Amino acid sequence: MLDNLDLSREVSKADYKEAKDQLELILPALQRKAKEMQVPVIIIFEGWSAAGKGTLINQLILPLDPRGFNVSSTLAPTVEETMRPFLWRFWNRIPASGRIAIFDRSWYRHVLSERMSGRLRGTELQQAYEDIRSFERQLTDGGYVIIKFFLHISKQEQKKRFSKLQGTAATKWRVTSDDLKQNKQYDKYLSALEDMLAESDSDYAPWTVVESHDQRFATLKIFNTVVSALESRMEKTQPVEKPKPTRGKKRSLPAALDASVLDTVDLSVEVDRETYDQRIKKRQARLRELEHEIYVKRLPVVLVYEGWDAAGKGGNIRRVTQNLDPRGYEVVPIAAPNDIERAHHYLWRFWTQIPKAGHIAIFDRSWYGRVLVERVEGFCSEHEWKRAFREINEMEHHLTNFGTVLLKFWLHIDSEEQLRRFKEREQLEHKKWKITEEDWRNRDRWDTYKTAVEEMLFRTSTPHAPWTIVESNCKWFARLKVLDTVIEAIEKSLPKG
Amino acid sequence: MLDNLDLSREVSKADYKEAKDQLELILPALQRKAKEMQVPVIIIFEGWSAAGKGTLINQLILPLDPRGFNVSSTLAPTVEETMRPFLWRFWNRIPASGRIAIFDRSWYRHVLSERMSGRLRGTELQQAYEDIRSFERQLTDGGYVIIKFFLHISKQEQKKRFSKLQGTAATKWRVTSDDLKQNKQYDKYLSALEDMLAESDSDYAPWTVVESHDQRFATLKIFNTVVSALESRMEKTQPVEKPKPTRGKKRSLPAALDASVLDTVDLSVEVDRETYDQRIKKRQARLRELEHEIYVKRLPVVLVYEGWDAAGKGGNIRRVTQNLDPRGYEVVPIAAPNDIERAHHYLWRFWTQIPKAGHIAIFDRSWYGRVLVERVEGFCSEHEWKRAFREINEMEHHLTNFGTVLLKFWLHIDSEEQLRRFKEREQLEHKKWKITEEDWRNRDRWDTYKTAVEEMLFRTSTPHAPWTIVESNCKWFARLKVLDTVIEAIEKSLPKG
Repeated sequence: MLDNLDLSREVSKADYKEAKDQLELILPALQRKAKEMQVPVIIIFEGWSAAGKGTLINQLILPLDPRGFNVSSTLAPTVEETMRPFLWRFWNRIPASGRIAIFDRSWYRHVLSERMSGRLRGTELQQAYEDIRSFERQLTDGGYVIIKFFLHISKQEQKKRFSKLQGTAATKWRVTSDDLKQNKQYDKYLSALEDMLAESDSDYAPWTVVESHDQRFATLKIFNTVVSALESRMEKTQPVEKPKPTRGKKRSLPAALDASVLDTVDLSVEVDRETYDQRIKKRQARLRELEHEIYVKRLPVVLVYEGWDAAGKGGNIRRVTQNLDPRGYEVVPIAAPNDIERAHHYLWRFWTQIPKAGHIAIFDRSWYGRVLVERVEGFCSEHEWKRAFREINEMEHHLTNFGTVLLKFWLHIDSEEQLRRFKEREQLEHKKWKITEEDWRNRDRWDTYKTAVEEMLFRTSTPHAPWTIVESNCKWFARLKVLDTVIEAIEKSLPKG
Repeated sequence: MLDNLDLSREVSKADYKEAKDQLELILPALQRKAKEMQVPVIIIFEGWSAAGKGTLINQLILPLDPRGFNVSSTLAPTVEETMRPFLWRFWNRIPASGRIAIFDRSWYRHVLSERMSGRLRGTELQQAYEDIRSFERQLTDGGYVIIKFFLHISKQEQKKRFSKLQGTAATKWRVTSDDLKQNKQYDKYLSALEDMLAESDSDYAPWTVVESHDQRFATLKIFNTVVSALESRMEKTQPVEKPKPTRGKKRSLPAALDASVLDTVDLSVEVDRETYDQRIKKRQARLRELEHEIYVKRLPVVLVYEGWDAAGKGGNIRRVTQNLDPRGYEVVPIAAPNDIERAHHYLWRFWTQIPKAGHIAIFDRSWYGRVLVERVEGFCSEHEWKRAFREINEMEHHLTNFGTVLLKFWLHIDSEEQLRRFKEREQLEHKKWKITEEDWRNRDRWDTYKTAVEEMLFRTSTPHAPWTIVESNCKWFARLKVLDTVIEAIEKSLPKG
C-alpha cells in the first residue's frame, strides 16, 4: 500500500489557512455530536521516526474540547505490562462512550518493534495479526469508531530530518540509536510495514496513509479524514437500505488533497517504432520460452487488466499472447454479469476461471469491477464495495499462497488522450464499433472514477499481489512495460534448477 | 466442543414418526420460500466414517423438491483439482440464488484429511482455517445461509459399525483401511476435530454437532436445525431493531431433542464428611505450594465460576482460596455493570481485571453473563449474544496464547436442590440476605436458562479453555472436584524443572 504514493504533495500557506479554518470549526462540532450520541472514538498514529507524529497530534487536539479526549503514548511495555497479554494495556485505555482516545503509537508497535527485533515471527506473528483484527472488529461491532493513520516519509527525508535534529545541541538527544538503525534498515522496515498494513486494513478499521513530507498537507489530510469518518459514522444512525452512488462530500479543500497519484504518473514516456519492433519480438520470444517452463514447473499465472476506456487493453493483451502456445493460456473477457452469474456470489464467476497450475489466465477487466463500475454506478451498496477490498485481498491471498503469480495492471492514459482516441474511433469505420454512448457517459464521470481507482490501487496493492501502473499514452511503451513486468515476475517465481 | 455431549440420546419410533411428519411438511414449504426469496442455501455434512452421512443426507432430501437442490460428494481431490487452490472446487459448486447445495464432506476435508496425513500443518494449517473463515464470511455476507453438521459417534460405536459391515460379504468392501486407521487413531483424530470445530465455529456459520448413535434422533435433529436456520433467515428480511428476549420457537418435538446434556449429569455423586475433611486439607496445602511455584515461574491463572443460583459458588471459591497467600490471588465478583462499565465495550471490565503473570484471578460470574443473563433477559440483542461466542473465544485464545491457565466451572445442581436451598435460606436468619425476589424470578425461567447454558457449554468449550461441569448437589464433592481440576491443570502447565 506504500508504493504508488506521491510523497511530494504539498499545500500552499494560503490554501492551508483557509481549509484549516473551516475544518477547525467542523471538528469540535462533531466532537460534541459524538458525545451527545455516545459514540466512542479511537484515533491512532503510527509512522516512521521523525515523521512528525507529535506535532500532528498536537495540531489535531488544538481545536478539540480537552475534557473530551485523552492522548496516550505507547512506549516499550513496562514490566507490569509484559506480564499480561499484549492487548491488555490497550483494552485498559479504550475510551468510554462519547470520548476520544488518541494513541501515539498503538497495538501495532507489537507487530513492528517486536518483529523487527526478531522476538515475534512465524505463527506467533500471524496470531498477533489475528488478535489485532479481532480486537478492532470487536470494538467497531460494539459501536466504536477506529481511525488509523500511518505517517509516511522517504528514507532520504528521514535522514535529512535526523541530520537537522542532530545539528543542534537542543535537539540532538531526540535522535536515538534505534532511530538511526531504522533509517539504515529502511527497506527491511518497509517490507514489514507493507505486510502489517495489508494484514490489518479492513472495512471496519481502514488505514489512511498520510504523505508527511509537507506538514501542511499532512495536517489537512488528517483533519479531513477524521471529519469524514465522524460524519459518516453519525449518518449511520439511520441505516440507509437502498444502495446509492457514493460521490464523496465536497468541502472546499485545496486541490492537493484531492490530487491523485495518477496525476503524478509521467505519461510522456515513449519508445519509437524501431525500438519497439526490435524489443517486442525478443520479449514475446522470451515469454514463449517461459510459457513452457511454467507448464513444466506447474506454476499458475494470473494477469489482470484494468484501465480507462480506450487505454489499449485489447491491443496490449494481444501483444502478450501473440506468440504464445494457445493451449497454455486463456483470455477471460469480463462484461456485465449474465443472469446465472448474477444469481451467484459476485466472486463466483472469477473463481470458476482460475487457471490450472502451469497455465496463464488473462482477465480483461476483472473482480475489480466491484470497486470500480459497481461502486461508481451504484450497482452495489457502499457497504458492499467497502467490504470488497478485504474480500478481494483474501481471494488473491488464497491464490498467491497456492503459488500463483498474480499481476495487476492499471493501464493509464490522461483525459485528453482518451478524447483523442474516442474521436478517432468515431471517424474510423473499422473502429466505430468500439465506441458507445456508455463510453461517453463514463468519460463524464472521470473524476469519480479517478477517486475509485485511487482507493483501489491503495487498498489492494499488497506485497504478494502488487499493482503496476502502466503509462499507456504511448501504446508501444505500455506493451513493453507489461511484457517486461510479466517476464520478470515469472523468472523470479520459477523454482531454481 | 465434543466433550460434554450425550451420545446416548434417542427417540422412540412413535415420537419419531409424529415429529418427522410435521417437519417433512414444513421443510418443502421453506424450500419454496427460499426459492421465492432467492436465498441460496449450503448444507454440509462432516463426521466420522460410518456415522451415517449417506443415510442422513438421504433422509433430508426425500421431502425436498429435487429440482431445487444438488448433492455433491467431496472425495480426495482429483489431479485437476490439486492444480488449483483448495477452495476452487467449492467456489465452483456454490448454489445459485434460491437453490440448495448439499455437501457430503466439504472444504473441511482439507483441514482434516490433509492434516492427519501430515501434509498440512503449522502456518499453512492456520492459513487454511483463515481461508475457510473468509470463504464462509464472504458467502454469508453475500446472503448465503450456511448450515454445518458434524456427525459424532464414539470410538466403540464406530468399531461396532465397522465390524457389522465387515460381517457381511455385501458390505465388507465399504470398510477401507483408512476407516480402520481412523478408529485406531480415534483420539488423535478427535483432537484435530476439536481444533477444527473451535477454529471455524462462528455466528455467521455455526456448527451443529449431531449425536448420531440413534439414527432417529440424528434425523430429527438435522431436520429441526435446517428448519430453524431457514426460518430465522426468512425472518431477517425485515430487520428487527429492538433487542428482545429470545426464547426459541416451540414445535411439538420429542423431549429428547430438547434434552440437555445437563440432565445427564449424575448429581448423586457425593463424599462423606470424613473423606471431605481429610482430602480438602491436602488439596488446599498442595494448591498453596503451587501458588508459590506459579509465582516463581510467572504462570498466570484464571478461574471462572458460573452456575445456578444457590449452586454454592461462594463456598466453593472460599475453599479454593482459604489457605492461599492473599498477595497471590484476587477474587473478582461480577454484578450488573455500573455506569462507567456500561459506557465501555462489554468486555472492557473483564480485561482490566486480567491477572499479572504469576497471579491467580478468580471470577465469581464473568464475561459469560453476555450469553446467559443478558441473553435470557433481553439486555442485549440476539445479534449481540450470538456474536459474543466468537468474541469470548477470541479473548480466551488471546489469554491462553500468552500462557494463561484458564479454567471454567459450571456449578450444576438440579431444580429440586435449588428449591430446597432457597427455602432453607429463607428460614435461616443469617442466610436470608442471600435470597431475593430476583432469584425466584430466575428460577421460573429455569428452562430458558438451561438452553442458554447448554449452548454456552457447547460453543465455548475449546481445547485451550475447556468447561468443567461440577456436580454440586453435594457441596463437598463439588469443592474437591474444583480443587482437583485446578491442581491438575496447573501441574500440567508448569514448565518442567
